Amino acid sequence: MANNMLAVVKANAAPGTEIREVKVPEFGRTDVLVRVRAASICGTDLHIYEWDRWAQKRVHPPLIPGHEFCGEVAAFGDEVSSVKEGDFVSAEMHVACGKCLQCRTGEAHICQNVKIIGVDADGAFAEYVVIPESNIWKLDPAIPLEYASILDPLGNAVHSVLAGEIAARTVAITGCGPIGLFSIAVARAVGAAQVFAIEVNEHRRKLAAAMKADVVLDPTQQDVRQVVAERTGGLGVDVVLEMAGHPSAIRTAFDIVRRGGRISLLGLTSKPVSLNFSEDIIFKGITIQGINGRRMYQTWYQMTALLKAGKLDLHPVITDRIAMKDFSKAMERLKTGEASKILVYPNGAR
Amino acid sequence: MANNMLAVVKANAAPGTEIREVKVPEFGRTDVLVRVRAASICGTDLHIYEWDRWAQKRVHPPLIPGHEFCGEVAAFGDEVSSVKEGDFVSAEMHVACGKCLQCRTGEAHICQNVKIIGVDADGAFAEYVVIPESNIWKLDPAIPLEYASILDPLGNAVHSVLAGEIAARTVAITGCGPIGLFSIAVARAVGAAQVFAIEVNEHRRKLAAAMKADVVLDPTQQDVRQVVAERTGGLGVDVVLEMAGHPSAIRTAFDIVRRGGRISLLGLTSKPVSLNFSEDIIFKGITIQGINGRRMYQTWYQMTALLKAGKLDLHPVITDRIAMKDFSKAMERLKTGEASKILVYPNGAR
Amino acid sequence: MANNMLAVVKANAAPGTEIREVKVPEFGRTDVLVRVRAASICGTDLHIYEWDRWAQKRVHPPLIPGHEFCGEVAAFGDEVSSVKEGDFVSAEMHVACGKCLQCRTGEAHICQNVKIIGVDADGAFAEYVVIPESNIWKLDPAIPLEYASILDPLGNAVHSVLAGEIAARTVAITGCGPIGLFSIAVARAVGAAQVFAIEVNEHRRKLAAAMKADVVLDPTQQDVRQVVAERTGGLGVDVVLEMAGHPSAIRTAFDIVRRGGRISLLGLTSKPVSLNFSEDIIFKGITIQGINGRRMYQTWYQMTALLKAGKLDLHPVITDRIAMKDFSKAMERLKTGEASKILVYPNGAR
Amino acid sequence: MANNMLAVVKANAAPGTEIREVKVPEFGRTDVLVRVRAASICGTDLHIYEWDRWAQKRVHPPLIPGHEFCGEVAAFGDEVSSVKEGDFVSAEMHVACGKCLQCRTGEAHICQNVKIIGVDADGAFAEYVVIPESNIWKLDPAIPLEYASILDPLGNAVHSVLAGEIAARTVAITGCGPIGLFSIAVARAVGAAQVFAIEVNEHRRKLAAAMKADVVLDPTQQDVRQVVAERTGGLGVDVVLEMAGHPSAIRTAFDIVRRGGRISLLGLTSKPVSLNFSEDIIFKGITIQGINGRRMYQTWYQMTALLKAGKLDLHPVITDRIAMKDFSKAMERLKTGEASKILVYPNGAR
Repeated sequence: MANNMLAVVKANAAPGTEIREVKVPEFGRTDVLVRVRAASICGTDLHIYEWDRWAQKRVHPPLIPGHEFCGEVAAFGDEVSSVKEGDFVSAEMHVACGKCLQCRTGEAHICQNVKIIGVDADGAFAEYVVIPESNIWKLDPAIPLEYASILDPLGNAVHSVLAGEIAARTVAITGCGPIGLFSIAVARAVGAAQVFAIEVNEHRRKLAAAMKADVVLDPTQQDVRQVVAERTGGLGVDVVLEMAGHPSAIRTAFDIVRRGGRISLLGLTSKPVSLNFSEDIIFKGITIQGINGRRMYQTWYQMTALLKAGKLDLHPVITDRIAMKDFSKAMERLKTGEASKILVYPNGAR
Repeated sequence: MANNMLAVVKANAAPGTEIREVKVPEFGRTDVLVRVRAASICGTDLHIYEWDRWAQKRVHPPLIPGHEFCGEVAAFGDEVSSVKEGDFVSAEMHVACGKCLQCRTGEAHICQNVKIIGVDADGAFAEYVVIPESNIWKLDPAIPLEYASILDPLGNAVHSVLAGEIAARTVAITGCGPIGLFSIAVARAVGAAQVFAIEVNEHRRKLAAAMKADVVLDPTQQDVRQVVAERTGGLGVDVVLEMAGHPSAIRTAFDIVRRGGRISLLGLTSKPVSLNFSEDIIFKGITIQGINGRRMYQTWYQMTALLKAGKLDLHPVITDRIAMKDFSKAMERLKTGEASKILVYPNGAR
Repeated sequence: MANNMLAVVKANAAPGTEIREVKVPEFGRTDVLVRVRAASICGTDLHIYEWDRWAQKRVHPPLIPGHEFCGEVAAFGDEVSSVKEGDFVSAEMHVACGKCLQCRTGEAHICQNVKIIGVDADGAFAEYVVIPESNIWKLDPAIPLEYASILDPLGNAVHSVLAGEIAARTVAITGCGPIGLFSIAVARAVGAAQVFAIEVNEHRRKLAAAMKADVVLDPTQQDVRQVVAERTGGLGVDVVLEMAGHPSAIRTAFDIVRRGGRISLLGLTSKPVSLNFSEDIIFKGITIQGINGRRMYQTWYQMTALLKAGKLDLHPVITDRIAMKDFSKAMERLKTGEASKILVYPNGAR
Repeated sequence: MANNMLAVVKANAAPGTEIREVKVPEFGRTDVLVRVRAASICGTDLHIYEWDRWAQKRVHPPLIPGHEFCGEVAAFGDEVSSVKEGDFVSAEMHVACGKCLQCRTGEAHICQNVKIIGVDADGAFAEYVVIPESNIWKLDPAIPLEYASILDPLGNAVHSVLAGEIAARTVAITGCGPIGLFSIAVARAVGAAQVFAIEVNEHRRKLAAAMKADVVLDPTQQDVRQVVAERTGGLGVDVVLEMAGHPSAIRTAFDIVRRGGRISLLGLTSKPVSLNFSEDIIFKGITIQGINGRRMYQTWYQMTALLKAGKLDLHPVITDRIAMKDFSKAMERLKTGEASKILVYPNGAR
C-alpha cells in the first residue's frame, strides 16, 4: 500500500474544498482500513462545502468529508476478527459511544455522544478511510456497487418508512430529495397501498414519477389537501414522511394526515415552525416521531434483505457519476437542483 | 318517576346558566335513563358558562351541560339488555358513530363523527340524563360514589399515562389541573420511578404535593431544566405528560424530555406554538402523541381495575362539593383557581 | 323478490347435504338481506358435510352452511343506514356480541360469545343470506367478484402475516391449503425478503410455486431444516406461519424459527402436540401467537387496500368454479386434494 | 492485593464442590476485577453441585460457579474507562458475542454465542471475579448490598413481568421459587390489579403471602381454575408468568389465561409438555413468550429505577445468609425446599 493518497480536503474555515495528497490514515487495534470504491454526496457535504452557519459551528478543518461509501477491506488492527482483506463493505458512520443509556437500550442511533465520520473525523471522499470494526457492515457481493455506496441515505429512508405500520397504508412523502425518493421505493416494496409524492422542484417530481409514486403533486400548483382527500375517501393519509424540512411542507404534512395517523419527521428545519397543537395534534390523536440516522443495526439488516431480494429499484435517483477530482463541479451541479444522488469514484475508473 | 326535573340550563347564547325545571328527557329503544347521583365540573363547563369563542362556535343553546357523572339506572328502552333498574353506572360521554374507519379499528376515541353528551346534547347537570346503552359503564358497588363521578377526567389521565412505557420511568407532568393531579396518582400506581409535577399556581402545587409527586416545581421560581437534570443523572425525563396547554409549559416539555423519550399532549392550546423541529424533535428522536378522550373501552377497564385494587387515592383533588342550585357559585370558585374538582349533587343530599 | 330460494341444506345429523327449496330468510330491523353472487368452500364446510366429531358437537341441523361470499344488497331493515339496494358487499361472518371485554377492547375476533353465520346460523350457500348491518363490508366495484368471494380466508392470511413484523423478514409457511397459499401472496406484497413454502401434497406445492414462493419444499423428501439454514445464513427464519395443524409441520415450525422469531399458529390441530419448552421456546426467546379469524375490522381495511392497489394475484388458488347444484361433487373434488379454493355460484350463470 | 484467594471449586466431573485456595484470576485490557462482597445461589448452582445431566453436558471442571453477586472494583485493564477503584458494582453474567444478528438488533439476551460467567467461565463464589467492562453494572450506593447481590434473578422477574402489558391487569404466577417471588413484588410495583401466586410447596406459599400476593393458592388442594374464575368475573387472568417448569403448572397456565392473554414462560422444563394447540392457543388467541435472561440493558435500568424508588420489598425472599466456607451446607438447605434465596459472603464478615 502506498503511504499517500488523494482526498477531498476541507482545508480552511472557508467555502470550498481542494483535492490534495495526504497520508493514508493510521488505524488502531480495533479499526479497519477500507479502500473506497465509491462514495456519494449528501446535502450535509454541501453545507460543509459552502461553509454555512451549521458547518462553521460543527466542523473543524482540516477535514476529509464523506460519509456514504463502499469499498474493500485493505487492512485491519490486530483485535479485529470479523473481516478479512478484500471483503466488500460499507459502514455506519455514526460512531456511538456504547455507554450511554440510549446505546445500552437499543437506541444507539440517538447516542448522547455520537461522532460522525466525515463530519467529526476524516471521511470517505478519499482513497482510504478508517472505520471501527463495530461499525463495518459486510456486504453480499450480490449487492451492486452503486447501491452499496448509498446505504447511508437508503437507511434513512428504511428507518423512516418502517418506524410504524406501513403495509396496506396510504403514505405521503413531502420532499423528494434522495431520501424522499428512496422512501418511495421502500414504501412500495413493503406494501404501502398508495404513495403520494409532494415536491416543488420539477426535476425531483420527474424522479418521483420514475420511482413509481402513485401520485406526484406540485404543491405550488395543485391543491394537495383536496387531491389527497379525493383519493383516500376523504380520510387523509395514514402516514406522512416529512423529508423537506420546509415550513410549508410541514404544514401540508399536518393537513393531510388522518386522525390517528403518524408523521415521521426527517427533514431538518432551519427556522421555527408554528403549530396549533389542539387542532393539529391533540384532537386528531396523531403520533409524531423524530427520525435520526439508522437503527443500529436493525435498519442495516432490513435494507440488505430488501436489496438482496431485488425489491428496490433505485437507479433513477443516481443521476451523476464523477471522478473525485471533479468534486467541486459536482457541488455546483447539486446546487442547480438538477442532480439528485451523485456518486464519487476516488480510485480512478468506475 | 316525575315528569319534570331540575337542571342547569344554558338557555341563551350568552354568559351564565340558570337552574330550571325542565321535562325529564325521553329515551329511545337503545337508551338508558340514569338518575344522576353526582356530577363533576370540567374546564369545558366553564368555557360554556363563560360563553367563550370556542363555546360560541360549538354549543347550541338551550343545552344542559355536564359530562362527568355517576348515577343509577332509572329506566331503559326495550332493546337494552345489559343493565337493570338500580344498577350503579357511569358513562363514556363521547358517543362515537361506530361506522368510520377509526371506530371500526379500535380508535373510537378519535371518531370522525363524535357527539359529546353535555356539549352537543343534554348532559348530566340534571336529575336525569339519557345515555345510549353502548356507552353505559356498569360500576362495581365497591367503587366510591365520589370516584365514580370523576371517571371521565380520571380516564384522560389513565389514557395519557398508559399511552406508552411508564413502569420504572421518570415522568414529568406539566400542568396540575385535575387531570394532571390524577396523572400523578396513576403514574405512581403503575410504577413510575419518579414523578415531577410542574405548575405555576400555588394551590395546585399544594395539591400535587398531596398527591405525592416526588418533586413539585414552580417554573416561575425554579430552574426546572436544571432540577430535572440533577435528579435524572443529566438525562432528562423519559416521559412528559403535557396538561397545561400553555406555550411555556410546552417549551418546558420539549426542554426536559430525554433523547428517545415521549411527550403525550393533552392540554388544549388557545394559540399557536413554535418549535425548532430539528433540535426539539428530530435529533432527539422523540415521540409526540396527541391524547384525546379515553380509549373505548380499554381505558375504562384499566381505571376500574386500578380503583377496585385500591391503588389510587384521589381525595385531595376533590376540593368542593355543592348542591346543584349553587352551580354559579361553583363557577366563580373555579375561576379563582382555588378549587380543583368540584362535585355537584343534583338530587339533594349528598 | 321471490318467496323461495334454492340452498345447500344440512338437513340431518348425518353425512352429506342436499339442495332444497327453502323460504328466503326474514330479516330484522338492523339486518341486511344479500343476494349471493358467489360463495366459496372452506375446510369447515367439508367437516360439516362429512359430519365429523367437531361438526356433531357444534352444528344443529337443519343448517345452510357457507361463510365465504359476496353479493348484492337486496333489502334491509329500517334501522340500517349504511347500505343501499344493489351495493356490492361481503361480510365478516363472525358475529361478535359487542359486550364482552374482548369486544370492548378491540379484540372482537376472540369474542367470548361469537356466533358464526354458516355454522351457528344459516349461511351463504343459498340465493340469499341475512347479515347484521354491523358485519357488512361494502366493496369497491373495482374488486373482482372472485376475490370478493374469498375475503374470509384471505383475511385469515392477512391477519396471520401482519400479526407481527414482516417487512424485510424471512418467512416460512407450513401447510399450503388456500390460506397458506394466500399468505404467500400477502407476505410477498408486504415486503417479506424470502418466502419458504413447505407442503407434503404435490398439487399444493405446484400452487405454492405458482404463487411465487421463493422456495417450495417437500418435507417428506427434503431436509427442510438444512435448506432453510443454508438460505438464511444458518440463522433460521424470522417468522413461521403454521397453517397445517399437523404435528410434523408444527415440529418443523419450531425447528426452523430463529432465536427471537415468531410463530403464528392458524392451522387447527386434531391431536395434542408435544413440545420441549426449554429448547423450543424459552432458550430461543421466541413468541407464539394463536391466530383466530380476522381483526374487526382492521384486517378488512388492510386486505381491501392491498386488493385495490393490485398487489395480490390470487388466481392460482381458485381451481374450481361450480354451480350450486353441484355442491356434493365439489366436496368430492376437495377430498382428492386436487382442488384448492372452489367457488360456488348459487344464482345460475357465473 | 494477595496472589491467592478462596473459592468454591467444582474440581471434578462428580457431585459436590470444595473450598480451595486458588490464584486470583488474571484480567485483560478490557476487563474489571471485582472483589465480591456478596453472592447468591441459583438453582443452576444446585444443578452443577449435584452434577445432573444438564451439568454433565454443559460444565467443564474445574470451575468456580456463581453468577449472582455484587462487589467493589479492585482493579481493571488499561482500556477500561467507565469504572474506578472502589466502585460498587454488579454484572450481567451473560457475555454476549456482540456480533450476531440478535446482538446487533437489541436482542443480546438471546445471543447465539453467549458465554455465562459462573457456568462457562469462573464465577463469583470466590473472593474475586473477572468481568468484561461491557458487562459491569455500576450501582448507586443507595442500593442495599443484599439487593445488589440478587439483581440477576430479580432481572429475570423484571424481564418477565414487563415483557408485555401489565398495569391494571390480573396476573398469575405459577411457581414461587425466588424469581416467582420477586415477580410478585415487581408486578405489584408496576400496577398489576391482582396477583395470584400458585405453588405446591408450603414454605414457598408462606413467602408468597409475605410478598403480598393478593391470592395464594395450593393447586394440590384448591381448584385454581375456579378460584381464578370467581375473582376475575369468569374471565381468567390477563397474564400468566410460568416459573415452575412443571407440566401441571404449565397446564394450569393455559387453563387460567383469558382469551387474548399472554403467557410468559421462564421455568425450565425437564420433560416434554403436551398441548392442544386449537383449544389452548388458537381459539383463545393468546400470545406465548419464551423469557431468557435479562434484556441488555433495559432490564438493568428498570430494576435499578424500581429499587432506587423504594418500590420493591424483597426481604422475605432472602431466607439464609452464610459464609462461603458453608457452601455445601447451603446446598443441603436448598434441597429441603425450606430456603429460598441464600446469600454467600466470600470475604468473611457480612
